[in-house]
Amino acid sequence: MTRFALTVEFDGRPFMGWQRQSHGPSVQAAIEAAALAITGETVAVHAAGRTDAGVHGLGMRAHVDVMRPITPFRLMEALNAKLRPDPVAILACEIVPDDWHARFTCLARHYEYRIVTRRAPLTVERGLAWRVPIDLDADAMAEGAARLVGRHDFTTFRSAHCQADSPVRTLDRLDVVREGERILVRASARSFLHHQVRSMVGCLALVGQRKWSANDMSAALEARDRAALGLNAPPDGLFFLRADYP
Amino acid sequence: MTRFALTVEFDGRPFMGWQRQSHGPSVQAAIEAAALAITGETVAVHAAGRTDAGVHGLGMRAHVDVMRPITPFRLMEALNAKLRPDPVAILACEIVPDDWHARFTCLARHYEYRIVTRRAPLTVERGLAWRVPIDLDADAMAEGAARLVGRHDFTTFRSAHCQADSPVRTLDRLDVVREGERILVRASARSFLHHQVRSMVGCLALVGQRKWSANDMSAALEARDRAALGLNAPPDGLFFLRADYP
Repeated sequence: MTRFALTVEFDGRPFMGWQRQSHGPSVQAAIEAAALAITGETVAVHAAGRTDAGVHGLGMRAHVDVMRPITPFRLMEALNAKLRPDPVAILACEIVPDDWHARFTCLARHYEYRIVTRRAPLTVERGLAWRVPIDLDADAMAEGAARLVGRHDFTTFRSAHCQADSPVRTLDRLDVVREGERILVRASARSFLHHQVRSMVGCLALVGQRKWSANDMSAALEARDRAALGLNAPPDGLFFLRADYP
Repeated sequence: MTRFALTVEFDGRPFMGWQRQSHGPSVQAAIEAAALAITGETVAVHAAGRTDAGVHGLGMRAHVDVMRPITPFRLMEALNAKLRPDPVAILACEIVPDDWHARFTCLARHYEYRIVTRRAPLTVERGLAWRVPIDLDADAMAEGAARLVGRHDFTTFRSAHCQADSPVRTLDRLDVVREGERILVRASARSFLHHQVRSMVGCLALVGQRKWSANDMSAALEARDRAALGLNAPPDGLFFLRADYP
């Protein structure tokens, strides 16, 4: 058996999310089907994170175990050939130790959330960003974001369906960057709760609209109550950027 | 009658091109249909340039004459509402003098061509860039591009279907910029011949692969013969960026 680590890019629009679902297509099922076609083996693909429907991946990491002898390059090329026409691409493939685990060995996860502030509908970026029809105050958003960095109980920013044992997470970074009419929010942590990034971005948008102050953000965090959440941002703008390993 | 100048963004993937066609959807027809629904008037929309099928616009300029009194803001909002779900958006709308013409008053046109150099297929950018599966030498491409700047007979880089009276054009700028695995080619001129940007980019890709030298590019230009063209790049990576007016 050889364990391969994959770097995966995918367009989340046609998928129910990363994880295999009985009721629709998933990125995991697409890769597993491609691997079965290549190796004849029923494999399980494990990822660094499970993304929601409509969320994209630019550098998702995953691993798969293959019994049949195959080089990383040939496996990558064969997966990319079999994955067509699904918008899933294997950007890199390497052999890793048998105890390397895409999810459990992961030291940090990095996301980017893309907001476009304009009245006009999106065209080339439709489904690839969150359009907010009014201008947002990026400086105010950065101030609000600073209130969330550090080790906190993120119950307010956690989906009711979150399966994590603890609502406590350490948010290492939550940066807000303006590039013209675009606002990029970049989040880094060892791990995130379900919907945590989208929930934080939704509330940051309220701060950017001056409907919330930075103090309102602190109050929402301290409430430790999902009912205190201001807004959950749509999946369209969320990209899993990359994962770090030892 | 009031003449309105429009700034138009569109995703070229579902369209046969800018210009109205009998055999499929076009950006022009989409905007004209939206204007008819709003004003009750059969209007003609004139653009700064006619883009091919699959070519995108980020800041195309166009004009339309409307008899019914309407403010620029209301016209823009109504067009955007009627254009749904087509991936066409009016980014700006302003009243211009009756002799302002999107095509004939235009002083300069600016295009960007996006190349992604990697083996893996595109996912989120599928149809929005040209994937070249090997690395390209951007410095060599810049040297090749410099051979095309200036006033030349661009017959080699002109489609057989080009309707321009003269093959002579003045290319003001042809820059090659590398951003990681992306190579951006930016072209500016008062006007371009049909397929000129795609033909120049196709030959630049040959230079980037070192199949052509900069001297080969000069020789192709001097041949003034379409048969001397090395390669026509696909429409996917081409974006009409903006047009300049007095």
